Amino acid sequence: MENFSFYSPTYFAFGKGAENQAGNLVKQFGGSKVLIHFGGGSVVRSGLLDRVKKSLADADVPFVELGGVKPNPRSGLVYEGIELCKKEGVDFILAVGGGSTIDSAKAIAAGTVYDGDFWDFYSGKPITKALPVGTVLTIAAAGSEGSPDSVITKEEGMFKRGASGNAIRPKFSILNPALTQTLPAYQTAAGATDIMAHLYERYLTNSKEVEVTDRLIEALLLTMVHETPRVIENPDNYDARANIMWAGMMAHNNSCGVGRSQDWNSHNIEHELSALYDCAHGAGLAVTMPAVFKYVMHHNVMRFAQVAVRVWGCQMDFEHPEVTALAGIKAFQNFLISIGMPKNFEELGAKEEDIPKLVSVLCRGDGRTGSISGFVTLNEEDCTKIYQMMI
Amino acid sequence: MENFSFYSPTYFAFGKGAENQAGNLVKQFGGSKVLIHFGGGSVVRSGLLDRVKKSLADADVPFVELGGVKPNPRSGLVYEGIELCKKEGVDFILAVGGGSTIDSAKAIAAGTVYDGDFWDFYSGKPITKALPVGTVLTIAAAGSEGSPDSVITKEEGMFKRGASGNAIRPKFSILNPALTQTLPAYQTAAGATDIMAHLYERYLTNSKEVEVTDRLIEALLLTMVHETPRVIENPDNYDARANIMWAGMMAHNNSCGVGRSQDWNSHNIEHELSALYDCAHGAGLAVTMPAVFKYVMHHNVMRFAQVAVRVWGCQMDFEHPEVTALAGIKAFQNFLISIGMPKNFEELGAKEEDIPKLVSVLCRGDGRTGSISGFVTLNEEDCTKIYQMMI
Repeated sequence: MENFSFYSPTYFAFGKGAENQAGNLVKQFGGSKVLIHFGGGSVVRSGLLDRVKKSLADADVPFVELGGVKPNPRSGLVYEGIELCKKEGVDFILAVGGGSTIDSAKAIAAGTVYDGDFWDFYSGKPITKALPVGTVLTIAAAGSEGSPDSVITKEEGMFKRGASGNAIRPKFSILNPALTQTLPAYQTAAGATDIMAHLYERYLTNSKEVEVTDRLIEALLLTMVHETPRVIENPDNYDARANIMWAGMMAHNNSCGVGRSQDWNSHNIEHELSALYDCAHGAGLAVTMPAVFKYVMHHNVMRFAQVAVRVWGCQMDFEHPEVTALAGIKAFQNFLISIGMPKNFEELGAKEEDIPKLVSVLCRGDGRTGSISGFVTLNEEDCTKIYQMMI
Repeated sequence: MENFSFYSPTYFAFGKGAENQAGNLVKQFGGSKVLIHFGGGSVVRSGLLDRVKKSLADADVPFVELGGVKPNPRSGLVYEGIELCKKEGVDFILAVGGGSTIDSAKAIAAGTVYDGDFWDFYSGKPITKALPVGTVLTIAAAGSEGSPDSVITKEEGMFKRGASGNAIRPKFSILNPALTQTLPAYQTAAGATDIMAHLYERYLTNSKEVEVTDRLIEALLLTMVHETPRVIENPDNYDARANIMWAGMMAHNNSCGVGRSQDWNSHNIEHELSALYDCAHGAGLAVTMPAVFKYVMHHNVMRFAQVAVRVWGCQMDFEHPEVTALAGIKAFQNFLISIGMPKNFEELGAKEEDIPKLVSVLCRGDGRTGSISGFVTLNEEDCTKIYQMMI
């Protein structure tokens, strides 16, 4: 196991009606003027935004609003949010929505107290200072509610890049599983796929002797395998949604990813897909992961065999562990298909002729010099082959 | 799943040499004058105390010292520590040791900023204010390094009681698995048993639909089953110790215990044993748990069958699930015996004739009215039978 530090100081309020604590929690964490940041109509239509506003009003906390966050959130709205916060003297950002809204809120929080262009943080500068952020989560997926990470897409060039820093880790996150019951099945499934990707990206390690985190990751994967079909079948299954919601947070606050190298190549390869085609990140991952896993499997076939046996119930073939490894990857892909996720470029809406462009932005964009690194270092030829495997 | 809140804002520095960060971490968390609190000679002999002092000196943080914490820490030393902190103007408590030292440090931290008798907190008053506490952990066991809990024994009457509050949750904890390599095998095994008890006490729930936390608990139990025999066989196995150390923290910071009722009857029944006989808490638990589990098993036989199948590899007997449940309890007890833990009163040094006294203090002491509650409510007759099963 590698040396590490772990710090996850977010306060989680979990359960039915938890959004009514928003006002008091903002106050408790020092907010006196709030920007409520949200996406489209669903939080308005469901009445959630009104409940959050009422909670703020009841706690005597004034607020301004900025809606309009889109999936794969864009830098344009971040600049707008920063301007608004400066003008209005906002000292707390409350995100009401999913990972895109939370990531956009984090970018605004960092940008508001920074003199330069906030995009600097998405080009490698660590975030050390930001306004405090709170969240009211509406989809179990990105894990942004418990993470120090944010991903934003820059319109010019459609670069999708991440930034990180404990300063943007939410002070509190409100997780009410009932809020996710109205999601379309496709979004629920894409969220579940993203959660499983966060687990696989941590599982694919080059570190040795990491049994405790292996077991924790497997525990969360087993939870997703059990609960996801139950919510697809019955969207109103509160308990299944609750199990998924806590798994989604635990999958990404890094409590099960410490002391080990991690991968994140699937995320990087997918980011170019959702940036170009504006597809759901989880849907892109459903197409990306099986291709990546098959391509890199021989780097450590026992790692893939282990998850095949422990999570997917495959029989261990001791003479041919690659058979077990491959069976596990296939079981995962079949699972993703069974919950309604796409299996190839066509179903995703991606185009074969774009592969050179995807590879170029992936391996050469934003300062990269021809490859991406992770479980295996992948150069342009590798990435081309991986995209071709998705056709 | 039940509604809950979760807050674990401790910073963890984990790995080889991590104790050298002590000085900087104290400073970072606002300490300007430190009480170093520790137990007996081992932290002195090993040179750990000197390294911690050097780290504080290097960071220009003055300190005073108070050693002498004993296993099952006593109120007498807590009063002494409180006096010393007040006299010296201490504003940060640094515990260097195991759960006993950390628990004693937490009691001093709460007592120093309280006008009344600190024992009030151990009689039910919640702790809302305390000096900040940091820890340098030397044994994987109690989980106190990541918990808001403290257990102290009052000399008069030998009451062993717990107190709780986020104010005494450590600001930082330093976990260097190498520091545990010099522990005697018996202490290592007792620590492992305590960790597994923290997991079982959370597993024995009356809540429904808690798959995610069931799976996380099982993951940590599986880790303990795999790693504990490896460190008993080879005390210098750093990686096995590292896996156990993180499992021990995760077992008790409640990330896998949220959203569900918990038990803690085994802990309560054991506390009277270690208070009276001054035995290792883990050793007491090794004798207590199998008796309690067999006694309460029929309250929810499927819960015991599930852990038997998922952790102990038992075959599910669908016609007679109680057979599977019992096989799991026996497998657990055999495991505890295999790592060197006692199996009955005699091996523990407890006496049959003390049972009435044990039951009386357990069920009538400190304001209790004849029973203890948890997975099953146990009255004096129940507790008598359970102690008798340990003979």
